[in-house]
Amino acid sequence: MSTSDADETVRLGFTGVGKRGQSLLARCAEMDDVSIEAICDVQERHLDNVEESLVADGRPAPTRYQDHERMLAGEALDGVIIASSWRLHIPMAIQAMEAGAWAAMEVGPASSVEECWDLVKTSERTGQHCMLLENACFGRDRMAVLNMVRAGLLGELLHAQCGYLHDIRPELHGFRESRMAEREGMGYRTLHFLKRNADVYPTHGIGPIAKYMGVNRGNRFMSLTSTATKARGLERWAQRELDEDAPTAGQDWAIGDIVTSVLRCANGETIIINHDCSSPRPKSGMMMVQGTDGLWNNDQEGIHVEDRSPEHEWEPFEEYRDEFEHAVWAEYQDEGVRRGHGGTDYLVMRSFVQSIAQDVRPPVDVYDAAAWMAISPLSEESIERGSDSVTFPDFTNGRWLTDQPTFGATGDDAGEGVLDFNTLL
Amino acid sequence: MSTSDADETVRLGFTGVGKRGQSLLARCAEMDDVSIEAICDVQERHLDNVEESLVADGRPAPTRYQDHERMLAGEALDGVIIASSWRLHIPMAIQAMEAGAWAAMEVGPASSVEECWDLVKTSERTGQHCMLLENACFGRDRMAVLNMVRAGLLGELLHAQCGYLHDIRPELHGFRESRMAEREGMGYRTLHFLKRNADVYPTHGIGPIAKYMGVNRGNRFMSLTSTATKARGLERWAQRELDEDAPTAGQDWAIGDIVTSVLRCANGETIIINHDCSSPRPKSGMMMVQGTDGLWNNDQEGIHVEDRSPEHEWEPFEEYRDEFEHAVWAEYQDEGVRRGHGGTDYLVMRSFVQSIAQDVRPPVDVYDAAAWMAISPLSEESIERGSDSVTFPDFTNGRWLTDQPTFGATGDDAGEGVLDFNTLL
Repeated sequence: MSTSDADETVRLGFTGVGKRGQSLLARCAEMDDVSIEAICDVQERHLDNVEESLVADGRPAPTRYQDHERMLAGEALDGVIIASSWRLHIPMAIQAMEAGAWAAMEVGPASSVEECWDLVKTSERTGQHCMLLENACFGRDRMAVLNMVRAGLLGELLHAQCGYLHDIRPELHGFRESRMAEREGMGYRTLHFLKRNADVYPTHGIGPIAKYMGVNRGNRFMSLTSTATKARGLERWAQRELDEDAPTAGQDWAIGDIVTSVLRCANGETIIINHDCSSPRPKSGMMMVQGTDGLWNNDQEGIHVEDRSPEHEWEPFEEYRDEFEHAVWAEYQDEGVRRGHGGTDYLVMRSFVQSIAQDVRPPVDVYDAAAWMAISPLSEESIERGSDSVTFPDFTNGRWLTDQPTFGATGDDAGEGVLDFNTLL
Repeated sequence: MSTSDADETVRLGFTGVGKRGQSLLARCAEMDDVSIEAICDVQERHLDNVEESLVADGRPAPTRYQDHERMLAGEALDGVIIASSWRLHIPMAIQAMEAGAWAAMEVGPASSVEECWDLVKTSERTGQHCMLLENACFGRDRMAVLNMVRAGLLGELLHAQCGYLHDIRPELHGFRESRMAEREGMGYRTLHFLKRNADVYPTHGIGPIAKYMGVNRGNRFMSLTSTATKARGLERWAQRELDEDAPTAGQDWAIGDIVTSVLRCANGETIIINHDCSSPRPKSGMMMVQGTDGLWNNDQEGIHVEDRSPEHEWEPFEEYRDEFEHAVWAEYQDEGVRRGHGGTDYLVMRSFVQSIAQDVRPPVDVYDAAAWMAISPLSEESIERGSDSVTFPDFTNGRWLTDQPTFGATGDDAGEGVLDFNTLL
């Protein structure tokens, strides 16, 4: 899609403007070349919040909707940002593309492999792009490691670890931020933990790793196994913290406390992904990348590079990060990093807007969205089948054989049809 | 088996007295209540070394053999320590038990599930015990964590990680200790890496974890998946370091550089095991144990315990180790820790000798040996079957339902028929 008019203003609509949607919208409100045409939410108070905030900033009041399809029918939008409940991300993205807009989805799991196919086919048929707003790909350390990988520092990649290990038991029981705060009621996310035994939040981990390994661009996921522990943490927390008649007390939680998935790639790499949101523990992304020439371990803040590090010893990652700092982050440090998940929210939103403005494929595209989100239903299937290996669909239908990795490219390396990351700031 | 005479001397024979066998023998030579009756090795120089060393220590010269079965036929032995090549551990242990002696095997992989069954059945039929000399179970930190687990500090166990990640590329190409040292020629171990795609060294990792989780004693392994990366590291090292006509150059290595296995236990726990001996990296046992109340991460030297640690934060493991120090290690620190893998070699050998002397089941028994060593052929099978889940045999034939965890027990907790760890020093 080309931009709407001569001044290249990108016209955006937002569906789902709760806490997360408001945060993504706030990042776009910092951009001069964006107009926030419409907002949509079932809750009036969210619409009020956004409208007040935009008007206070001197922006025009957006048109308000409580129905996604009505917004799509009523507006001429270049892009639609979807931060609704997890289950609706893909259906709403499909509707947006059908209506002639690009879609951007906040992260979450797919419900089925089939809807991932529907997402891809809709994008291909309509010619509208769909981006997964996986901010983790845009992190400072993550992008420095991307540079290291591209520079061959770690050699040929062999193996990686990643995951989402984050104790959010209070939130899953409907408390906001902390168990001491006022109860909000059981959120939509909680239903996935109650009913699905799967890795329901794989993309923060797999996103950066997939970019390192060139997944969907010269490589692809081939198969997956998943194994789940028993479910203890969420019920145990309820017994400790809640009254017996609380809505999330005494539930039979489907999700195993720790879900371990192992992926195998076409080029022979393997990836361990862990999910744990219900155990007491410090937060971790469990990121590790091992190549033939060395490895990076994020939790240990260490790196080891053959012929450079002392044999069998770690070196501090920080020194390497400075050397391999991504251009966009070097500039970002100078300009001042913006709010929102360590500056990544701005970068991910800006890359969506700039992809529209430049009419280039977004850096996390519909094939990435399908493959990364499909990990959830595929892990569900493997667990259901006693951890047997399940085959990964090739959502690109062979495009991965010829497509090249371009995430993070700058200047001449970006080339035609590719987002130049130097244009993000 | 009861001891041989009134003074309770335990009569030992040693098969395989190369570097590792000599080290294990040296630990036994430090014990006053042990007589080293016989030694067996195909290489005369190893026999010479041991004999000289024993005689220099004022011990009688042992009878020398070059054939294991002849040694068994020619000697009245209470226990036989087997540190031969990996493939012969189980067959030689079976022969020792058939000859009326207890067997102790240095660690290594099984060749097949069937030989693990043969090992178990031979032990049951002959009434002779078989111990796996898994020194990792006896480590200071490992035993402190055992105490933490038994005390309930981490709550109900959910998940663990472990592995053997050790860059031994020079050794696998036949160099001793370092690539600069004189070449010894391709060892028996290298054949496993050349021909088998499997986790060929699982027991250092799984041993302590199995003890924490009560495997074979109230719990058991149910199933396993394994996934291997491509093989790059060993051939790449050869290209960098060796002449083209070197015996390990230009080989087609079967083993994937990193092998990831995921086990599921009867009580609902999961365990990740990694094997990597061919990548440049600092050594790691990758040990992590997560329970409902907290976790320990060895590489991060950290622990987090709910209601005790600050929320979402690590605490130094060391403070907890001091608090939960195992009695045998408290005493060992005072007495002076002996040589050999951080003091563990003495403890593991002493526990074999004391089990014979007290006529109690050894603390790592034939069922442990079978289950832990079977991980190798089972991982081989899963990899061969595209990572499909393979079923774990119950080598105990149901004894796990009633047997209780006793590893590390002291004083009254040891009870009848159980090795009292206070007798190890």
